[in-house]
Order: sequence, then structure tokens, then C-alpha cells
Amino acid sequence: MKKEETHLFNPHVSVDCVLMSIVDHKLSVLLVERWDKRGETIGLKLPGGLIYQEEDLDDAAYRILNEATGMKRVQLKQFRAFGSPERTRNKEDVLWLENASNQKIMQAYQETIRIVTIAYLALCKPDRKAADTEYESMHWVPIDNLPRMPFDHNRIVNEAVFEIRDWADREPAIVFSYLPKKFTASELRSTYEIIFNRKMDVRNFDKRMKAMSYVIPTEDVKEGLAHRSPRYYRFDKTLYNKLKIKLNKNK
Amino acid sequence: MKKEETHLFNPHVSVDCVLMSIVDHKLSVLLVERWDKRGETIGLKLPGGLIYQEEDLDDAAYRILNEATGMKRVQLKQFRAFGSPERTRNKEDVLWLENASNQKIMQAYQETIRIVTIAYLALCKPDRKAADTEYESMHWVPIDNLPRMPFDHNRIVNEAVFEIRDWADREPAIVFSYLPKKFTASELRSTYEIIFNRKMDVRNFDKRMKAMSYVIPTEDVKEGLAHRSPRYYRFDKTLYNKLKIKLNKNK
Repeated sequence: MKKEETHLFNPHVSVDCVLMSIVDHKLSVLLVERWDKRGETIGLKLPGGLIYQEEDLDDAAYRILNEATGMKRVQLKQFRAFGSPERTRNKEDVLWLENASNQKIMQAYQETIRIVTIAYLALCKPDRKAADTEYESMHWVPIDNLPRMPFDHNRIVNEAVFEIRDWADREPAIVFSYLPKKFTASELRSTYEIIFNRKMDVRNFDKRMKAMSYVIPTEDVKEGLAHRSPRYYRFDKTLYNKLKIKLNKNK
Repeated sequence: MKKEETHLFNPHVSVDCVLMSIVDHKLSVLLVERWDKRGETIGLKLPGGLIYQEEDLDDAAYRILNEATGMKRVQLKQFRAFGSPERTRNKEDVLWLENASNQKIMQAYQETIRIVTIAYLALCKPDRKAADTEYESMHWVPIDNLPRMPFDHNRIVNEAVFEIRDWADREPAIVFSYLPKKFTASELRSTYEIIFNRKMDVRNFDKRMKAMSYVIPTEDVKEGLAHRSPRYYRFDKTLYNKLKIKLNKNK
């Protein structure tokens, strides 16, 4: 470690960000390219990296996401620490990290290399990315077609899929944060179907949607369809929050 | 670090266990005594410690809980990583940890000392402890009367209280794992009141309990009360699990 560096990395703890979205009707995860020393692409990985010595975990997650993708206003949620000794067994991965972070990691360890990573999760719109082309190495990859990734990134994404479903159940607001301001009943159902990877009965889903009193019908209808003009709905966040508080009180 | 030691500690990552229970009608947390070099008590802390270099996080949590309390069959759940640089600012805490773990921690750091801790959570019966007196330094302390603890243990307990309520909402099974095999409606309500720190309307709660189809009335009544003999109920775990699967399918 060089004393004159502004930020010293902590070679023992990293964060990884699992950003999910629906792209081409598939639940997808945002991956970034990994380069070798010559700058050639050698595969994909989660946006992630070592924390700075003087940086809180949440701050590190937002910094790293922003550096890798240009994204700023994503609501990240810490979801799990992954710390198996196995995750750094592949020396290639660690050598790559040394190169990418421009820091000797090996020498921080007298014994086995061990990096615990704290994983963060978000569901966001796929168009959330910086306007410029600086982040061309970003790719949305369907979760059923993941490449082999370094460290335990495949495992992290698999666990994140369970977590996002659980989160969508508990806090439906995150599903609406993904949707446009106006959406049809069929678009909402389709979103749930994709997140939960399961066809849902139309009538059952309509009942479920009616029970969501914070989903408000608007005066607008969707034009341009051949035989019908389905109504647009909107998500009333104020009402949602009020109901959530009331529900918690009545419990 | 001595090479001949069977287990090397990782001086950068620890786990802490927040065990909660209801003791004397109060939501309480299990704390253990901290000793100075002469073996004198210098206060209380969460059961916790550094992970071994070759140990997964979950394994470390179960080992540390068992070492500190003799408990074995508690269902621990990882709930959050705490990694603020502030948590190891008090040098006294770090010196104590060096002494307690019999390991030089300072020398592992060229710069600021930084230990990220992974916190685990469980709700359990207060009588869960080893039969012998080896664990006399264990204390159940009400969460509204916590002492000042080392590192960020006060913050961890505060966050754990929110987490346990959220968990009890999502998975009522953990509430029943706390209760005896047979319980009255009033005992169940009282348990919820204590966990959520809120008086609950008797009639509303009865409705809520009726909706819990996995809470089954038994033939037994509670004897020894002056004017009434309330019925005992039991928790049907098989039914609960079936309903949970069904609920998830219908979503």
C-alpha cells in the first residue's frame, strides 16, 4: 500500500451489487466486463470491488455501483454476506483483482487469502444508465443464461433471485418502482410472472390487484390494440405508505 | 500468528450473535461477561468473536454461540453486516479483543484497524442453556435496559429488534418456537405484545388468531385460575409448512 494514495483499499472486505431488471421479458442481472492486463475482455462479473479502508459498507456499495455503471439513485439493500473460504480458491480471480484494483492483495495475507463480500440488491428500470457511452461494458444478462463468473458471483446471483421474490412479496412498492407511471393490469401481471417465473391465472391476479387499494384506475386507456383498449392504472405511493403504517399498527 | 496453532483467527472479520427471548415478560437479549487480563468482569457484550481463517461465516456463528453459551440447536439467521470504520475507534475494545482471542490484531493492520462483523439473530426459549454451570457468565438483559457495550453492540441490538419484529411478521413459526407446546390465547397475545412492544386489542387479536389455521384448539384447559379455565392451543408445524407452500404458489 502506498501512503500517498488518497484511498487505501481494505483487501479483506468487498461489496458486490446485484442489480436486477426485466429486459426483453426476462428477469436479468447487470454484469460488467472484466479485463485482463492488456485490456482484453475476459468475461463478465457483478459490479463490485474492495472497500476503502475508511469507508462504510453502504457508501462503498453506492460508490462502486456508480463507478461501474454511472447509476446514482438506485435504492440498494444489503442482503447477505458471503464469506466461504472457497470463494477465493481460484488464484486467477485474485490475480485479476490485484490487477483491477492496482493493489497487492496477496501480501496482506500471511495465510490463505480470504475476502468476505457484502452483497447488495436492487430492482430497477433497464434504462437507468448514464447518458454517455462511458459504461459500454455494462450488460443485462437473463438469469437463466448466466456465464461462469469469478469468485462466487454465480451463487450470489442465485441467492439474489430468491431474495428479490421475497422482497417483492413483502414490499410490493419495489415492483412498482420498476413499472412506468401508467401501466395496464396485464402489464402488472406480466411483471409479477417474470419476477416469480410462473404463469398466473388472470382472474386470480385481477382479484389480487383489486385488493391492492393503492393501485388506482386512471381515465386513460391504452390505444393501438386491435380489439380492446385496456385501462391504465397508477401506483399511489402516498396511499401505499399510509396503508403500510396502518397495517403495522393493527398487527 | 503462530504456525503451530490449529486454528488461525482472521483478524478482519467477526460474527456476533443476537439471541432474543422473553424473560420476566420483557423482550431480552443474551449477553456474556467480558473479562480483563486479570479475569475481572468489565462489562457485558454480545456473544461474538473473530472467525477462523478456514471457517465459513455460518459455521463461525454456531461455533461462537456454542462456546459462549453451550447452546447448539438454535436456528441462527444472518441478518446484517456491520462495517463502519467507527466501530473499532475505541482502542480499549481492540486491546480487549487481542487479549480475549490471544492474538495480535494490531499487527495485521498497516493502517486503521477495521473489523467487519456479520450479525446473526435468533428467538429462543430462555431455558436453553447447558445443564452445567460453565456458562454462568450468561445474562438475559431486557432490551430497554441495555448497558453501554463495546464496539457497536448497542447499535446491533437496536437493529436486531426491528429485524425480529419483521421476521415474526413474515414467519410466525419463530414465535411458536418460543412458546411451550400448549399455550392459551392470552399467552399467545402476550407474546406478540412483548415482541412488538404494543398492547393489542383482545377481540382484534382473537380474530387474527382464528385466521391462523395452523393454531389448533386442544381438549385441554388451563387449570388453577379463579374464575375461568381457558383452552389450550397448539401449533401445527406440518399444516403451517403446507399452507406456506400453498400461499407461495397462489401468489
